[in-house]
Amino acid sequence: MTVTDTTTTAPARLLGLLARDLPPDRLATDPRTLAAHATDRSGTHPEGLPLAVVHARRTEDVTVTLRHAHALRVPVVPRGAGTGLSGGATAGEGSLVLDLSGMNRVLELSPEDQLAVVEPGVITAELDRAAAAHGLRYAPDPASAALSTIGGNIATNAGGLRCAKYGVTRDSVLGLEAVLADGTVVATGRRTVKGVTGYDLTGLLTGSEGTLAVITSATLRLRPLPAATATLAAYFATFEAAAQASHAIARAGVVPALAELLDGPVLAAVDPALREHGAALLIVQCDGAGAAAEAQAVADVLTPLATSVRTTTDPAEAEALLSARREALPALERLGRPLIEDIAVPRSRLAEAAREIRAISARHRTPVFTIAHAADGNLHPIIVVDPALDRLPDAAWETAGEIFALALRLGGTLTGEHGVGVLKRQWVADELGPAAHALQRRLKQAFDPHGILNPGKAL
Amino acid sequence: MTVTDTTTTAPARLLGLLARDLPPDRLATDPRTLAAHATDRSGTHPEGLPLAVVHARRTEDVTVTLRHAHALRVPVVPRGAGTGLSGGATAGEGSLVLDLSGMNRVLELSPEDQLAVVEPGVITAELDRAAAAHGLRYAPDPASAALSTIGGNIATNAGGLRCAKYGVTRDSVLGLEAVLADGTVVATGRRTVKGVTGYDLTGLLTGSEGTLAVITSATLRLRPLPAATATLAAYFATFEAAAQASHAIARAGVVPALAELLDGPVLAAVDPALREHGAALLIVQCDGAGAAAEAQAVADVLTPLATSVRTTTDPAEAEALLSARREALPALERLGRPLIEDIAVPRSRLAEAAREIRAISARHRTPVFTIAHAADGNLHPIIVVDPALDRLPDAAWETAGEIFALALRLGGTLTGEHGVGVLKRQWVADELGPAAHALQRRLKQAFDPHGILNPGKAL
Repeated sequence: MTVTDTTTTAPARLLGLLARDLPPDRLATDPRTLAAHATDRSGTHPEGLPLAVVHARRTEDVTVTLRHAHALRVPVVPRGAGTGLSGGATAGEGSLVLDLSGMNRVLELSPEDQLAVVEPGVITAELDRAAAAHGLRYAPDPASAALSTIGGNIATNAGGLRCAKYGVTRDSVLGLEAVLADGTVVATGRRTVKGVTGYDLTGLLTGSEGTLAVITSATLRLRPLPAATATLAAYFATFEAAAQASHAIARAGVVPALAELLDGPVLAAVDPALREHGAALLIVQCDGAGAAAEAQAVADVLTPLATSVRTTTDPAEAEALLSARREALPALERLGRPLIEDIAVPRSRLAEAAREIRAISARHRTPVFTIAHAADGNLHPIIVVDPALDRLPDAAWETAGEIFALALRLGGTLTGEHGVGVLKRQWVADELGPAAHALQRRLKQAFDPHGILNPGKAL
Repeated sequence: MTVTDTTTTAPARLLGLLARDLPPDRLATDPRTLAAHATDRSGTHPEGLPLAVVHARRTEDVTVTLRHAHALRVPVVPRGAGTGLSGGATAGEGSLVLDLSGMNRVLELSPEDQLAVVEPGVITAELDRAAAAHGLRYAPDPASAALSTIGGNIATNAGGLRCAKYGVTRDSVLGLEAVLADGTVVATGRRTVKGVTGYDLTGLLTGSEGTLAVITSATLRLRPLPAATATLAAYFATFEAAAQASHAIARAGVVPALAELLDGPVLAAVDPALREHGAALLIVQCDGAGAAAEAQAVADVLTPLATSVRTTTDPAEAEALLSARREALPALERLGRPLIEDIAVPRSRLAEAAREIRAISARHRTPVFTIAHAADGNLHPIIVVDPALDRLPDAAWETAGEIFALALRLGGTLTGEHGVGVLKRQWVADELGPAAHALQRRLKQAFDPHGILNPGKAL
């Protein structure tokens, strides 16, 4: 059989070894499964179809898969629910998809230590629901929480609506179990909220978009559910006025749990009747024992700047106020295929960023819809393209490119929370600079010397 | 001169090159300066004296120093105020000390973006004071804040009293400028609170104890000063009862700004009169708009468990309640040389850890004084040794070793906030495990291929 081993191609040998060493239900090569696992919600379509999909159910499936792929130098694309918006989970010809969505057990939920240990395929909202039964919550809440997995959230260091007060995903990850490119299992971090032994591998893996290791379990911090919540909705004559108002909240020393900003085009897409209230809507939520007092302070700040301000502590009314935000993306999806950018700028530059985005949009005759997590300067400028088009129109690319350049010019970043994936790679070097970029490549090399983990993504 | 170049020793050549390339006031080789820069507050004394001290005043001094040291393979020990407790800044024979305490300018303080850009030698409390003038604060507050530098705080990922609510140093570092071993300057992170482009080099450098790069400036997050503060002090019949009470606060869903626990021996050292109130003192502070309501909730939890509970919103009275905590270390220093450990355990194991520490102390007939940041499970078991002794008594080492083993057995860590330095190196592999330890060494290699940066520390 030695003759076969040296003449067969690496992909064919890999499939043979995986068929031999994995339990029988793990490996899929049928074209429908391959096609379903070739792309993500970015809408990016790589060339060709992947070789196969491994449906991992336990850590050993991951170690077996990576050990063989490493030896045979076959690229591996780790994948959760495929809800990524930057193409980080796209898998083209010659690559092996490692699907972790079936590793979806909550291994431990400790109300005593306010932490959970979960497999990567657990749906984020489900963990939050399990925590709520103990008076706790998983604070990170990406808008995709009902669909996306913890593993994917960690891979992109996902943000969400509550970041200004509760931090991003990294701030809730205490430790990880991960499998290195060669199949070695490493444990990082710990079960304590503090700890400084060794370099921060937990933070390094968080946000690494599957290019450094494959996460097989995560120890996550849970937090007490807030004692109270108060919600405000304010309309403004212009988006800039709303952005300034959001900045005025920060200047008043209030850290809201969320501050979501919707521009006029988004309001019109959700419901033309909303647009009649103003050209921008700012929704603010304060939580904790001081929620009512903070909401009053926010109302005092907003009232002279807004056209209307409404406050409530009633959960059903709060949900009604937040519904415009929840309906924004579905509404834009009805108009076409939304290309959702996620630049972040220093908070004081939010109004300026919004003004410049409008100018860029006008220059390229490309409508841009903008939602912002206002309290942390994170903007989602959304370009809606015709879904019938095979490729993005040049004007859309140019608009996106100018928005990225704007973010960097204002001292911000290309991506606040979605990750680089494949879509933003061409701008990464501009943000990192050559020295940090080179250093990052050396780190990649230290983790993955053969470059098999999600090649062509992130860096 | 080529003959001289190949026959002179590397240290002598380095001193010649530094004398040539650095401004005249930067290089010191007099024995008094060398002795003053050979050790830190750990009390560890390395063999011999360092070669020289470079008093850096600007980034270029650091790049020049590292470029030559790298080429000549001379070890470099970066240093701030020398307040480290683990020996991370100790510098023995043959090493060059790179003193950053003179790079002490606040380069920018932006109330608009709630951030500061500072050089590494800025004293932590001075930054906090500068921020307070704008209604802001720098949240991390290591007990050494009045003496220690931001650079040293970042090097050890320093903790402090407010971590349970506001996080550790890493949670306030947005970006860094750092010089790599070969003299290359890299910028990491950004001025925004969110951002996921590239790997998290900011987090990786934070806590790396000067072994990966030398930090030359830091962009730090500032936060609004809290609207209100309420302070409680409660005495308990036993330390375990106080630890359980602190855990009951967490279970009640309150996240206090600080929760400091002092055991009976510490109280007796501060003032024998305090010891008459109980065998342990728990000081809790709540802050923010909900401070009074939270303090009431805390009082409700503590009252049935404590022997006495006292609450105040008056700043002077709060200061009086906190003074026992502030006076603890000076009081122990009057008894001898305190060896301050800083294990952390999952919060539910705090009482168990305290009980076990007492048993270890009894077994080795070595008194252990314990202070804890109770809300994050971070304990400071302190062994006081006779300052006249040349070396630590075996019983002290054995006591420390058993305390570290205990921390790991309870699912905790050797060091919650002080760093590994030289003192805890022999236990690092036990905590990290062989695979993560090997990976960390590969990362070190990717940053510092000749191993010149703070060799023999941290890993």
